[in-house]
Amino acid sequence: MNELEARAALMRAADVGDPIMGRLLDHCGAHDTVTVIQKGIIPEPFATNESREALLQRRLRRWLARLEIADPAADLTAGEQAGARLIIPGDQEWPTQLDQLGHGRPIGIWLSGTADLRFSCLKSVAVVGARAATSYGVHVASEFGVGLSETGWTVVSGGAYGIDGAAHRGALAADSPTVVVLACGVDISYPSGHHNLFAAVRDQGVIVSECPPGVPPTRGRFLIRNRLIAALSRGTVVVEAALRSGALNTAKHALALDRHLAAVPGPVTSDMSVGCHHLLRERKAICVTSPEEMIDLVGALGDDLAPNRRGPILPRDSLSEPTRRVLDAIPTRASLGPAAIAVAAGVDLPTTLSALGSLSAAGFITRTPTGWRLQKPSP
Amino acid sequence: MNELEARAALMRAADVGDPIMGRLLDHCGAHDTVTVIQKGIIPEPFATNESREALLQRRLRRWLARLEIADPAADLTAGEQAGARLIIPGDQEWPTQLDQLGHGRPIGIWLSGTADLRFSCLKSVAVVGARAATSYGVHVASEFGVGLSETGWTVVSGGAYGIDGAAHRGALAADSPTVVVLACGVDISYPSGHHNLFAAVRDQGVIVSECPPGVPPTRGRFLIRNRLIAALSRGTVVVEAALRSGALNTAKHALALDRHLAAVPGPVTSDMSVGCHHLLRERKAICVTSPEEMIDLVGALGDDLAPNRRGPILPRDSLSEPTRRVLDAIPTRASLGPAAIAVAAGVDLPTTLSALGSLSAAGFITRTPTGWRLQKPSP
Repeated sequence: MNELEARAALMRAADVGDPIMGRLLDHCGAHDTVTVIQKGIIPEPFATNESREALLQRRLRRWLARLEIADPAADLTAGEQAGARLIIPGDQEWPTQLDQLGHGRPIGIWLSGTADLRFSCLKSVAVVGARAATSYGVHVASEFGVGLSETGWTVVSGGAYGIDGAAHRGALAADSPTVVVLACGVDISYPSGHHNLFAAVRDQGVIVSECPPGVPPTRGRFLIRNRLIAALSRGTVVVEAALRSGALNTAKHALALDRHLAAVPGPVTSDMSVGCHHLLRERKAICVTSPEEMIDLVGALGDDLAPNRRGPILPRDSLSEPTRRVLDAIPTRASLGPAAIAVAAGVDLPTTLSALGSLSAAGFITRTPTGWRLQKPSP
Repeated sequence: MNELEARAALMRAADVGDPIMGRLLDHCGAHDTVTVIQKGIIPEPFATNESREALLQRRLRRWLARLEIADPAADLTAGEQAGARLIIPGDQEWPTQLDQLGHGRPIGIWLSGTADLRFSCLKSVAVVGARAATSYGVHVASEFGVGLSETGWTVVSGGAYGIDGAAHRGALAADSPTVVVLACGVDISYPSGHHNLFAAVRDQGVIVSECPPGVPPTRGRFLIRNRLIAALSRGTVVVEAALRSGALNTAKHALALDRHLAAVPGPVTSDMSVGCHHLLRERKAICVTSPEEMIDLVGALGDDLAPNRRGPILPRDSLSEPTRRVLDAIPTRASLGPAAIAVAAGVDLPTTLSALGSLSAAGFITRTPTGWRLQKPSP
């Protein structure tokens, strides 16, 4: 069983986001974790006391029961046939900002769509809100979808009716990729009324899920899914939310992950803005009234280290090692050709050319008549 | 010339809110300030250097020219005939929170109306906003006017069209006093369309101005007037404001005076909410969506010392000496009759009875079958 198959198996065994599985995985690796479950032998550092050992034994039994009926090879084949791919930590396309979830980091992620998840999420904003949105909220969400996309920011959301759908549609209308994070398999259209929307996202963006293909959504999976929406993006904006709303759960995850949190105000007479106003009143969220203000908040490249701003993620940190070396070799005030960059970076030419393409797509660098130079940070 | 006449004369001589006049007044008193102007002799501490002396000499000449044509006795008579009264620092009705304006404290204030200004403003909130308000803003302002009044809070505003008028009308509809601060004489209806509104305020509340009767409004007087609105009340809420708006000037004064500042959110598609959202975005104002939230902000009696709250004014500080002694003599958990209170306070019975009436009206104390006891602070 290789790493990919082992993780596919563990995704069937554990509940999504189970931190005990995460700890075991981080300690043993995927292959040995499968062995641990199969043999029921607890690795030394986990048996610190009787109650912890008993807890882990119960988990192992639960996981074993599921593992025995799992068929990871069949999952991978089914995914492939559905046009989906499974990515795991260490893959080129793995968004390294997910590592900030600690032991709650996904075991793997199923993707369906043409866009590269990692690069799409380097500059991304989660636009979330109520399913029972008002026409005001739908209008604002689609304006945010268009406005963020037009300035090179990817819209991440949950693909639900109301605010989510309007934000995705705005991004698609601006001919930009958008990221839909589902609480079910990437091959399932949930809600079914968004079947065509999801088809368009597959063409232009990417659909994301921690569930293997074919797995239906559950309430628990929705809440766990929300942490992925928050973790993938550099900030979350709540467009409309009633006082009890899944969007506020995403907002909580954004705060816990030290991401920027914003809320769009609305009429105080509207129940659908009560959750947003609550976030503002408690000073948990920043008041944002336009896509420009949201971009100002999440920060332009090279500009998001201002001391009074939150958000520890530099997109630079998310780059692979050779890509970062290529980036570091590109001058600020002059242009350099690919060959010179490859020499300066100490990276071979094909890798350099591929890295230049990715860096350009992500807005780090820009092509000039004489080669490549760093993109000026927006003011 | 007595103190009242001297101050009436100085109100004609100086521009409203002139801090140089304020410094001179604080140093010499009103009577001697008139003499200083008439003789043109600068008191010792003011002649610290040549440029300051020259500045003061110019001011003295400006003031003298006006003083020579002033007729304070005629002003007082005219005011009386118009049903107005002039109050000056030290008077029973003087709101001592105005002393926080420092040298910008008014020389005197003209009042027209049945309500007692000092007691009306002990628990008061300024509700301000755009003249060109939307129907949404007018609706919210009148809800705040009614809601604040019904819970015993006085609405202070500027008597303008739009938000101001709606707030005053809400207070009147709730049978409560309301305070209109004008930028012209209290006998002038500006705007004239509010003639009937001002008549109703005189019946039920009080109209306030730093200008002698008959003086028309000017742009400068509007801006200077705004500091009085902020200073009289324990907090200011901006209901609607365009990005350049007089209401934002009042908000600035509220912050400078360390009063609570709140803003009501609205649709991001409305120009009339841009100023409010700006205050929220800059975290200068707290997001407030109902009168209850505003009251929660400005704090209930005895409850406004919570460490994370701003606002140094305890209404207790605004009480006169005998009234405070009466208040201190009233028990928390039991009732006491007026005679016992008078003995405990060391204050004569008529003064005690008058103080009990005022304290009750201001919500400090409550009458029981057996006497008086302290009002429980609202939660």
